[in-house]
Amino acid sequence: MIRIIGVDPGLRRTGWGIIETLGNSLRFIASGTITSDGDMDLASRLCQLHDGLAEVVHSYQPHEAAVEQTFVNKDATATLKLGQARGIAMLVPARAGLRVAEYAPNAVKKAVIGVGHGEKQQIHMMLKVLMPKAEFKGNDAADALAIAICHAHNRQAITSRLAALAG
Amino acid sequence: MIRIIGVDPGLRRTGWGIIETLGNSLRFIASGTITSDGDMDLASRLCQLHDGLAEVVHSYQPHEAAVEQTFVNKDATATLKLGQARGIAMLVPARAGLRVAEYAPNAVKKAVIGVGHGEKQQIHMMLKVLMPKAEFKGNDAADALAIAICHAHNRQAITSRLAALAG
Repeated sequence: MIRIIGVDPGLRRTGWGIIETLGNSLRFIASGTITSDGDMDLASRLCQLHDGLAEVVHSYQPHEAAVEQTFVNKDATATLKLGQARGIAMLVPARAGLRVAEYAPNAVKKAVIGVGHGEKQQIHMMLKVLMPKAEFKGNDAADALAIAICHAHNRQAITSRLAALAG
Repeated sequence: MIRIIGVDPGLRRTGWGIIETLGNSLRFIASGTITSDGDMDLASRLCQLHDGLAEVVHSYQPHEAAVEQTFVNKDATATLKLGQARGIAMLVPARAGLRVAEYAPNAVKKAVIGVGHGEKQQIHMMLKVLMPKAEFKGNDAADALAIAICHAHNRQAITSRLAALAG
């Protein structure tokens, strides 16, 4: 059994989701959203994200982490903000000794809804199909669970390929 | 006497500089560059920057921090990388309890060479004029010292204005 944390980074809201995977089975453990206070200065907000995520990692003790490869849009200021939050999202599990995998948004969608594009609502629905006990409030926590599922699929594919080569 | 750390963030190289300021005087304490290994994964590189900067903050115990407001260029991938490094550069001093000020590149240049634009070589020369004992290897450490000087000037201006208002 491998416990995975998925993280959907953002300066205002960082979603997180914890699942367990064993063979083909997926089990929902927990999910949530860490928010930072928009009235505070940037350094304090990054501390809030750090402390919130460090608490989640400490509480749930995941074995591996996965973070979404941020969509780089044309707004440089937004990209910079996202980069700062993403730096924290990758640092916290790495400092706890976890390997941190990165997945592109379309890889995440493909793992959950079968194709590389789709609506938020489709992701929510498929999360409930794949893990009937899944609970999530809002898109950030749902996306984080989808990222964790994407990693569960991909790490298994890698393991199978290695086994086939060895066999 | 106030001890200031200036940081010039970058994923490959993060420059740092420590100075002391008392009234109008400036004193050089130390400077250096933290590098991350381009062959390692992103999360590990962010850990290297974190650990290197945390060691500097722990060794020199600065009272206040200043970080350059990153120039947002047209290359979104470069902006995202810089954002990730910058997130770490702001997090480390903030977690140590320091206030972290941000300054735009032209404010930094103005504080050191008197105008908002200029060559790297002019900054190097003026650092030697302002702090004859200053030592720095490369542009990143020099820029970090310039950021620290910029904060020394601006924090003093703020203090003077508050004193004038009170008087």
